[in-house]
Amino acid sequence: MDAERTAVAVRPVEELPGADGFAQWLARTQDSVREHVDAFVRARCAAELDPAGFALPGRLMVEFAAGGKCVRSVFVYLGWLAGGGGESEPALRAAAGAELLHAFALVQDDVMDQSPVRRGQPSAHLRLTNWHRDQGLSGSSTRFGESAAILLADLYLVWAERMLRESGLPAPALDRVWPRYDAMRSELAVGQLADLTNDANRQPTVGTVLDIARRKSGNYTVRRPLELGAAMAGCDEHVLRVLGDYGDVIGEAFQLRDDLLGIFGDPAATGKPAGDDIRERKATTVLALADQLATPPDRARLRELWRADSIDEHGVALAQSVITDSGARRRAEQMIDDRVEHARRLVADLEPSVGDALYRMALLCTQRAH
Amino acid sequence: MDAERTAVAVRPVEELPGADGFAQWLARTQDSVREHVDAFVRARCAAELDPAGFALPGRLMVEFAAGGKCVRSVFVYLGWLAGGGGESEPALRAAAGAELLHAFALVQDDVMDQSPVRRGQPSAHLRLTNWHRDQGLSGSSTRFGESAAILLADLYLVWAERMLRESGLPAPALDRVWPRYDAMRSELAVGQLADLTNDANRQPTVGTVLDIARRKSGNYTVRRPLELGAAMAGCDEHVLRVLGDYGDVIGEAFQLRDDLLGIFGDPAATGKPAGDDIRERKATTVLALADQLATPPDRARLRELWRADSIDEHGVALAQSVITDSGARRRAEQMIDDRVEHARRLVADLEPSVGDALYRMALLCTQRAH
Repeated sequence: MDAERTAVAVRPVEELPGADGFAQWLARTQDSVREHVDAFVRARCAAELDPAGFALPGRLMVEFAAGGKCVRSVFVYLGWLAGGGGESEPALRAAAGAELLHAFALVQDDVMDQSPVRRGQPSAHLRLTNWHRDQGLSGSSTRFGESAAILLADLYLVWAERMLRESGLPAPALDRVWPRYDAMRSELAVGQLADLTNDANRQPTVGTVLDIARRKSGNYTVRRPLELGAAMAGCDEHVLRVLGDYGDVIGEAFQLRDDLLGIFGDPAATGKPAGDDIRERKATTVLALADQLATPPDRARLRELWRADSIDEHGVALAQSVITDSGARRRAEQMIDDRVEHARRLVADLEPSVGDALYRMALLCTQRAH
Repeated sequence: MDAERTAVAVRPVEELPGADGFAQWLARTQDSVREHVDAFVRARCAAELDPAGFALPGRLMVEFAAGGKCVRSVFVYLGWLAGGGGESEPALRAAAGAELLHAFALVQDDVMDQSPVRRGQPSAHLRLTNWHRDQGLSGSSTRFGESAAILLADLYLVWAERMLRESGLPAPALDRVWPRYDAMRSELAVGQLADLTNDANRQPTVGTVLDIARRKSGNYTVRRPLELGAAMAGCDEHVLRVLGDYGDVIGEAFQLRDDLLGIFGDPAATGKPAGDDIRERKATTVLALADQLATPPDRARLRELWRADSIDEHGVALAQSVITDSGARRRAEQMIDDRVEHARRLVADLEPSVGDALYRMALLCTQRAH
């Protein structure tokens, strides 16, 4: 089998002498991931979705699945390369399944958060709601849109696993992956459950918020994908530990950037309304920092704002200035820099081209505008 | 390995000489299924759920998972026995995973249908909603309950597969199962999607409704579980075909009984309000039959009722009498009898004790009061 042969001949990311090489490699890897996802989802839609009698779900699933930045798939593949797997199409296909798992999480998340926008487009449940209304069907269009989106998310979850199982990786590689894969999926759901009970009114500490963020999205974005790929390749314990530590710090840094963008991000770049996390009163790391660092009067204003029935533009501006004045914004930026620097030291232990790629991925994940 | 050894020594359902023997075997099998489910869910909750910081989800998942009639697990196990697998603990454990898949479907379904009651108890999302309210947490308790229930359903879906994978069945048996397992899960989601667009106002035909019912619940309740078990055992084509045909007719008969109970069932037995499907204006087989068989004035009354904003007790009684007068109720009972008789002839081709058990299961599934 191809995967078994390439697993012996290690040739990791050979085109990575510098930034240009990395950018080329990344673009090519992302393209391959998107092609694999596109082909897989089209095939499954053709085989399974037509009986539903309407074309929108299939179109939506194809468009959405390959519409992301492929961060998780790239990390799975880098884990595989760090583990000595060598460039391999089956491993790339297996890695690409992470996009479907992510699509599951996003579609379901948008229903739970009632988010109208995703990647600058109407979210899946909203498109399905509009379809129901346009067709003049009876019953609540909103309920229909949410229910249909939940079912499409189910399909993504099942297909994600199927794509991994049918990737062409040899059975021993898959056997090493399943326990980690199951644990990752449970962790994702349990992390979101914890997040639901993480009530902004109860003023959680920075530690609590970071802990939930780690389980909810940090682990699932960086650490678990890397470990999955490394386990696929049959990686040694030392490399696995380095990847785990790297994943921890960059997962946190990724989340800190997300939280900064949720408060200060440019809507044109993020595709979300300005101050989205403020409007939704999310208990993010940056808010917890502000609550900790602000002067007593500012802290009181912030807490009062968070108890209001709704937050308008004026409230968003107020929160932004209180958070900035408290030093929370600067502190969060510093925490990100510390973590990237920590990651840089960690990856020095890895094969140089893979270490370099991981360092550049750390920069990409933490210095982004969306 | 235990499974490999028992798979050779075929001893199918040896205690099945008659009704008493079957009842004993069924009770013992259901008990084993519940024990396996209980042990598995408790272990997973202890390993994965505690970090969520509140005990209700775990208690709820344990209680709910083993609270059913184990119909699907028994069919998986009968498929295994029909396929020549012989009595086997790993096969029983694999079969029991079907309860978790079913728990996933029910918890999610109750959110989508906004059903307040399941098995005579408050449904999962309602219990979670009440918990949120009792804790005095901020935000919408309803949203919280629904979101948390969706996440618990996700865990059931992931755990269902994990229970099958870790059942102790040998790898070749599992390899035969996965394509069918994936197809079954997709079919379940796609069937529900089709059901969402199956609008009562558009007066679907009996054929359309039966087709959707087959894909939504019939296949998933009888046919697919049987085929899954048979595939696990490495069953021959002839037996697989017999089981498939049996599954088709008994799946339909199961759904017809469900539809009759949804209109005429006794609330004390079903654990649901009287005429629940009428109140929810579900486009079931029995309704489609009534629409087809009723006199023109009665048909007009029924259609008018279905377009009303809500249906009260008077409307439920009116619908019940129109449906009965149309002959739809009698026709549905006849369709059930025809299918059970068809199944009786089909199973005559199987090993006698398994055939007998399948015939008695057909009676149980179609002559129930809840």
